[in-house]
Amino acid sequence: MSECIFNKLHEECGVFGIYDNDSLDVIASTYSALYALQHRGQESCGMAINVDGVITGHKDVGLVNEVFTPEVLTKILPQNGKMAIGHVRYATSGSRTRHNAQPLVVKHCKGAMALAHNGNLTNAAQLREELELTGAIFHTSSDTEVISYTITKERLTAPSIEVAVSRTMDIIKGAYSLVITSPTKLLAARDPRGFRPLCIGKLENSYFFASESCALDACGATFVRDVEPGEIVVCDKDGLRSIKDHCGGPTNMCVFEYIYFARPDSVIDGSSVHTARQRAGAFLALEHPVQADVVIGVPDSGLDAALGYAHQSGIPYGVGFIKNKYIGRTFIQGSQKQRENSVRIKLNPISATVTGKRVILIDDSIVRGTTSARIVRLLREAGAKEVHFRVSCPPFLHPCYFGTDIDSRENLIAVNRTNEEIAEIIGADTLGYLSVDNVVKLADRSTCGFCTGCFTGEYPVEVPSEKVVDKFSRPLSESPKKK
Amino acid sequence: MSECIFNKLHEECGVFGIYDNDSLDVIASTYSALYALQHRGQESCGMAINVDGVITGHKDVGLVNEVFTPEVLTKILPQNGKMAIGHVRYATSGSRTRHNAQPLVVKHCKGAMALAHNGNLTNAAQLREELELTGAIFHTSSDTEVISYTITKERLTAPSIEVAVSRTMDIIKGAYSLVITSPTKLLAARDPRGFRPLCIGKLENSYFFASESCALDACGATFVRDVEPGEIVVCDKDGLRSIKDHCGGPTNMCVFEYIYFARPDSVIDGSSVHTARQRAGAFLALEHPVQADVVIGVPDSGLDAALGYAHQSGIPYGVGFIKNKYIGRTFIQGSQKQRENSVRIKLNPISATVTGKRVILIDDSIVRGTTSARIVRLLREAGAKEVHFRVSCPPFLHPCYFGTDIDSRENLIAVNRTNEEIAEIIGADTLGYLSVDNVVKLADRSTCGFCTGCFTGEYPVEVPSEKVVDKFSRPLSESPKKK
Amino acid sequence: MSECIFNKLHEECGVFGIYDNDSLDVIASTYSALYALQHRGQESCGMAINVDGVITGHKDVGLVNEVFTPEVLTKILPQNGKMAIGHVRYATSGSRTRHNAQPLVVKHCKGAMALAHNGNLTNAAQLREELELTGAIFHTSSDTEVISYTITKERLTAPSIEVAVSRTMDIIKGAYSLVITSPTKLLAARDPRGFRPLCIGKLENSYFFASESCALDACGATFVRDVEPGEIVVCDKDGLRSIKDHCGGPTNMCVFEYIYFARPDSVIDGSSVHTARQRAGAFLALEHPVQADVVIGVPDSGLDAALGYAHQSGIPYGVGFIKNKYIGRTFIQGSQKQRENSVRIKLNPISATVTGKRVILIDDSIVRGTTSARIVRLLREAGAKEVHFRVSCPPFLHPCYFGTDIDSRENLIAVNRTNEEIAEIIGADTLGYLSVDNVVKLADRSTCGFCTGCFTGEYPVEVPSEKVVDKFSRPLSESPKKK
Amino acid sequence: MSECIFNKLHEECGVFGIYDNDSLDVIASTYSALYALQHRGQESCGMAINVDGVITGHKDVGLVNEVFTPEVLTKILPQNGKMAIGHVRYATSGSRTRHNAQPLVVKHCKGAMALAHNGNLTNAAQLREELELTGAIFHTSSDTEVISYTITKERLTAPSIEVAVSRTMDIIKGAYSLVITSPTKLLAARDPRGFRPLCIGKLENSYFFASESCALDACGATFVRDVEPGEIVVCDKDGLRSIKDHCGGPTNMCVFEYIYFARPDSVIDGSSVHTARQRAGAFLALEHPVQADVVIGVPDSGLDAALGYAHQSGIPYGVGFIKNKYIGRTFIQGSQKQRENSVRIKLNPISATVTGKRVILIDDSIVRGTTSARIVRLLREAGAKEVHFRVSCPPFLHPCYFGTDIDSRENLIAVNRTNEEIAEIIGADTLGYLSVDNVVKLADRSTCGFCTGCFTGEYPVEVPSEKVVDKFSRPLSESPKKK
Repeated sequence: MSECIFNKLHEECGVFGIYDNDSLDVIASTYSALYALQHRGQESCGMAINVDGVITGHKDVGLVNEVFTPEVLTKILPQNGKMAIGHVRYATSGSRTRHNAQPLVVKHCKGAMALAHNGNLTNAAQLREELELTGAIFHTSSDTEVISYTITKERLTAPSIEVAVSRTMDIIKGAYSLVITSPTKLLAARDPRGFRPLCIGKLENSYFFASESCALDACGATFVRDVEPGEIVVCDKDGLRSIKDHCGGPTNMCVFEYIYFARPDSVIDGSSVHTARQRAGAFLALEHPVQADVVIGVPDSGLDAALGYAHQSGIPYGVGFIKNKYIGRTFIQGSQKQRENSVRIKLNPISATVTGKRVILIDDSIVRGTTSARIVRLLREAGAKEVHFRVSCPPFLHPCYFGTDIDSRENLIAVNRTNEEIAEIIGADTLGYLSVDNVVKLADRSTCGFCTGCFTGEYPVEVPSEKVVDKFSRPLSESPKKK
Repeated sequence: MSECIFNKLHEECGVFGIYDNDSLDVIASTYSALYALQHRGQESCGMAINVDGVITGHKDVGLVNEVFTPEVLTKILPQNGKMAIGHVRYATSGSRTRHNAQPLVVKHCKGAMALAHNGNLTNAAQLREELELTGAIFHTSSDTEVISYTITKERLTAPSIEVAVSRTMDIIKGAYSLVITSPTKLLAARDPRGFRPLCIGKLENSYFFASESCALDACGATFVRDVEPGEIVVCDKDGLRSIKDHCGGPTNMCVFEYIYFARPDSVIDGSSVHTARQRAGAFLALEHPVQADVVIGVPDSGLDAALGYAHQSGIPYGVGFIKNKYIGRTFIQGSQKQRENSVRIKLNPISATVTGKRVILIDDSIVRGTTSARIVRLLREAGAKEVHFRVSCPPFLHPCYFGTDIDSRENLIAVNRTNEEIAEIIGADTLGYLSVDNVVKLADRSTCGFCTGCFTGEYPVEVPSEKVVDKFSRPLSESPKKK
Repeated sequence: MSECIFNKLHEECGVFGIYDNDSLDVIASTYSALYALQHRGQESCGMAINVDGVITGHKDVGLVNEVFTPEVLTKILPQNGKMAIGHVRYATSGSRTRHNAQPLVVKHCKGAMALAHNGNLTNAAQLREELELTGAIFHTSSDTEVISYTITKERLTAPSIEVAVSRTMDIIKGAYSLVITSPTKLLAARDPRGFRPLCIGKLENSYFFASESCALDACGATFVRDVEPGEIVVCDKDGLRSIKDHCGGPTNMCVFEYIYFARPDSVIDGSSVHTARQRAGAFLALEHPVQADVVIGVPDSGLDAALGYAHQSGIPYGVGFIKNKYIGRTFIQGSQKQRENSVRIKLNPISATVTGKRVILIDDSIVRGTTSARIVRLLREAGAKEVHFRVSCPPFLHPCYFGTDIDSRENLIAVNRTNEEIAEIIGADTLGYLSVDNVVKLADRSTCGFCTGCFTGEYPVEVPSEKVVDKFSRPLSESPKKK
Repeated sequence: MSECIFNKLHEECGVFGIYDNDSLDVIASTYSALYALQHRGQESCGMAINVDGVITGHKDVGLVNEVFTPEVLTKILPQNGKMAIGHVRYATSGSRTRHNAQPLVVKHCKGAMALAHNGNLTNAAQLREELELTGAIFHTSSDTEVISYTITKERLTAPSIEVAVSRTMDIIKGAYSLVITSPTKLLAARDPRGFRPLCIGKLENSYFFASESCALDACGATFVRDVEPGEIVVCDKDGLRSIKDHCGGPTNMCVFEYIYFARPDSVIDGSSVHTARQRAGAFLALEHPVQADVVIGVPDSGLDAALGYAHQSGIPYGVGFIKNKYIGRTFIQGSQKQRENSVRIKLNPISATVTGKRVILIDDSIVRGTTSARIVRLLREAGAKEVHFRVSCPPFLHPCYFGTDIDSRENLIAVNRTNEEIAEIIGADTLGYLSVDNVVKLADRSTCGFCTGCFTGEYPVEVPSEKVVDKFSRPLSESPKKK
């Protein structure tokens, strides 16, 4: 999605775990995996290493190669661990803060535990309040701490960590893909609906859990299978085993994982993400055909759909933009004239592709429309005769309660507007979105159902009546009246 | 103490709090105060700012001016707080870790709370275990988290934070000087024995709490009085008030605060630290007189006692060493020959003062003796004819359970050795320690009793039978058998 | 080229200059331009700002957004300049050193001067020796300092800086694209052969010089024309004027600018780089046809040629690899097993595209072959049935004397090997290179001739008999005998 | 001097060199020496290492332990040098810039050379102009580059580097203490007047040059003797030898080296700096006696003189202030009220010493008087009954042309004011300066004459008619008319 250049829509996390039985360097594997999962979260990252039951970690705001400097990798992290978990995060709050970085390492009556979590609970606020009323103190405002407390409470009476996790799954609601290390075990758990992906890999006798298969590839591991919705997978000295008490119900993978979040080289639930995106383009070509000379995509995530559109329609595929590959925080101000031009620093059209041409432009979403308008203008300035905008997903109309940070409703361009009105705002000649009917067909080999709540407002599970704001970030003067 | 150059003996912390009623910049005050308290802890530091009940903070390993960069002070910390607390820390563990930095900011049923703590509980391990058995999870291995939990638990039934703190003081044992901010109040509490100092300051209508009065000076505040042993002082919109339920018993201030930890410009319990150190020198001159030409001190903390010795004995005071004032981490290796010389980089004798002279050398303590031996050798190489070593405190023979990190007993040079044997080891002609009888007379205007446990092995309160090691830093393979 | 991921073949520099007449922020423009030119050099970068004749600058090792931090941009650089020049550099020596970073700012009898240089002189060593024999001292080992000295010497008798530059062009030989600021003028000069690109842009009344037109786009400027080979363009308060004393001879643009160095969205000498690369692919399809199911390119620079090959051959274009876009220095070691896998961290194949397919793989060059072999292996592991390797340039067989750092001859895989032998080494089923006959036809609208010396060994100008090593980096013990 | 806390008066440099014959680590020695010389310059520092004739270095703005990180010491600097030179600098310009950092490493016809320079030439501007008129280009605005050029020019015809240096000493005028390394030699040279100190040390068979003997101590080297005014000392494989062509004339060491610049543990020209300062206090007691209860000094440099005053007068010496030893850049703003208090963060009075007392306060200089006024006020607020200010040098009335950056004349409080007027301004009861007659007697065992130009306006050598401003930092619009 072009918006990714401007950081508008965010997945919250990627998770990883390794149980080594082959003298692998678990830090090196976790580093490689987090680097491969970096697209799932750029705000903060962390690792926790388990050395014979002692669990220590390091986490901070920044990219993987910023946080994990040579000094951290060789001096701060312990060097002889057999288990490790890792996490990358994009905070919903927007502020760059170290407090909510993961994994969360906690100490409790049965030893230490570290958790990495991708998703969003729908009953976190309620669980938190119940815990507080028994004297619990919280260091963070993250769901992960609520999950940790719940597991710990259950662990007091449960015979094992896996039973405690299973009981916790009776209590927590919503989306979660978890990787956990206890003193002697590595666990993976996925919520019964399977909102977020989670898969299992293997390299010789060592096991891996990861949000996406591209992280397994980065470790040199082979993809074994996905963790099933509702499944708990336990890895310890006896190998892998599975608890399926919460499996078997209806499932609802987030369809936006295929459209935008996941890396195209990942395979989720049996379906290639790259193929799913090509299919989105092909469906678009069928739903919204138009006469044109070239099909181009907005880098990087619009490219696959553009190729699919081109193949389906027979209109040539072209490279329309160059994206500056030296990504990073840039600081630049300049005059008004210069600021208006700032998008070109990151994205520049190739005139040879578009000048004098009728252009079909594919992007994977439109949020506010501001960026889309700029990109259309770039094409016109570069000489495009016509610009036909095609979007490889349906319009966003509703909030997500399962871990995606969609803009607030008043900012969503598609709310209460026709395609023609949107086309006019963004300066396109025509506009077409992929239909909800087709969006659920993208993953051709997937056995999961899908969640399309952000498009339809129909959610697979109960959602809170209103979005809860963290009460601790609300000043006293704005507090609701005491009851 | 000379050893301070080589980081051998550590106080664990300094604390600070401000309640502003005069449009002061609470960040600037806290910064100034922590900078003034830096000698009490150089490993990590932190601040928590209370803005209308929302408490956020920043803490990290490093010195105050390393952690609180312009960006942190102006962008990361919130700018309009009316309350703030701060902390400097020297970790006993030795490893530079961010995890145990303070203040600790927690969220619980009655709102947020931040704590800064100086001291050491004697029943922390036991309390922690009890809490864990009710499902508590711990993020740190510090006593401060145990105190936070205990306050939170009591707060569930207590009508106010101050009552919760008072009840907590019935539960926790040992040494603690606490500064706490709740959403609407700033509190200070000192353990009933008054092991660690804590005082109150005022500037117009604003109030301050600090470990030492030098921090009040740095804020431009006036010293009001010490917090009494056992007292809780509460500051809120109605001003200052006091809870003295735990006051009135026997008191035992750590005498080493006067000898080494505190800054000479601080006044503790009515007694000037500078004067106390001069008195130590004067007592030494009476206890261990010797014929000599000059009295010199080991910078910085031996200087005051040297001046006292000189005044009492009539032997001229001289400047014997220059200490390099560009303190900081240095990294240097070099050949064996060069490493042996490394002490000179930090401390160099002034030949003009000592060549051909009989020298009385005053230091405030000897721990292992290694550094003392090097310093004596420096003086001999610079031409001193005789070196008479005088120590402004009694010999260390026992561990401290109240917040000082004394070396393990097998490393203490004074254990099982006569003064003559020690003198021979460190190369001095004669050696004399201040007596325990006189050490308790140093603070001439103090009304407190003193703790001299590290010299005598007689502790004012019950102490654990053995030093407890954090169970979470012990690998599974070394765990004790399950009972 | 895939090798770019592994830093094997380097252009040395990109240059930029701005003369502002419209209250632009020259720092913001230079920043944007250098950011757009970053692909031409990642080792160091710099700016020099001219404020009313006072020229100051900042340069350091690192990427543009690492060196030009907010503090540097707003506090260290002067804020009200009307002229600025900038530079990005990749050092041939390989060591990350600040000494040879540019622009070079010097002070001489007629005022200050700053230079930014892209290219390589063939008579630098000789000129340097002559200068030294008159007492010159050198701070760097770069050609740029030789050029500065020469201009300064000529300036002693020349009536203007442009005449001094013109006379300098009689003296210096080889490849150079220069941007210079004197106290009152901005100059651009390109060597008579035009080895390296250099172009002119305009925005309202302000002028720009840049190595590539993509930098003009980033500034919001319009492309005016290329600086002609041999031309000096002078910009001052009277506008733009041209000195063409060295124009009109044969020209020899480096053809590798089209194949690899330049950004695809740049237009050089009238020809789109993107189009040139597509043509390379089309020529390859004609020269080396093969039956296959899909054509893929090695990201990023092989993609355009792959698209050209696909269009020409009718075989579908596919996306074969995902390149991790979070580029940056990574530090990772791990076990032997893990190191072998390290290429996957940066480049991962998409199985859906290649499994069970006959694949045509396009890359823009092969240097040592090691990386090519790894990439072919990745495809085979992902299930490719056949891999037909096509290279969009002829084989490297000879050194470059004009600014490209080609590996030493003994490392070049193509030297003394047939295509079949190379194919076997890299594991490809077949291999085909673009012919020299076609490589000079890539730039369809270019009026320049080309240099193909690295392919043919026939150089357009005299080259040194051997590569000269900087005498100052040679220890005394290895010095040649004094004559 | 108290002003040192506020950075008002600056020495420009410290220099060092080592010629190793004993397998010492020359980097470790240079590091130790620069650390010991840090008080002579805190803006920037650098080292140049000579490995078998190849000279490379590293320099940057910052303190020694900031610039020479472990990475620089072990990876950037070459590890097997036998010669090294080093430099610490305080720039007169005030701006923190890397450009003028030293040592200066240059390459010329006879090989490489590195120079470190302490002092200030009086004819640099004229020499520079002459060089420029022959085509020289300058990278810096420092005298050091002028000296380098001159040596290089002379070297063209001189038979050796030492002869070139000797001829250079015929040409350059003013103050200079130089340490130089050529490919095979280490040289030290001191100007004929001996304005700045320079001494020779030895450790086994290795030789050392340093601005002050405290740097030799830090290296474990033994002081051999001072380099004589006008002497060139050459160290090479044949050992040490001396060229004394410029020796024998009148000499004029800067007296302020004894009063403030040098470290008290250094011995210069046979006289202990510490003793000289004590003598200053004793002379003051004789010149300006007063009835009082205690004598205190402003830390650090007023302490020795205070001790001397106390011994001479019989009035007890006391410790009046604690200076915060965690020096470093601090950033703090706060309200107006808080800023006024800022001096206390660095310097806090000890009430026990001064309350109710008549205090004699010794400082080593008064420049503008602002800081002195603040310090007097601190004492009064702490309860001092009377404050008698004594200054251990005469009043500053004239500029220095030999390397000290004295404030401009309009800022000097002593210009055109009586002692009584100054006393009133700074709030002291009485004020007394050391007389010029006595200031030249401070160095009791020195054979040098002294420069007292800043006190008397009588300079030992010709000085420029006006202070020359670097023409390259003057904008065109302010340039003088061309002649």
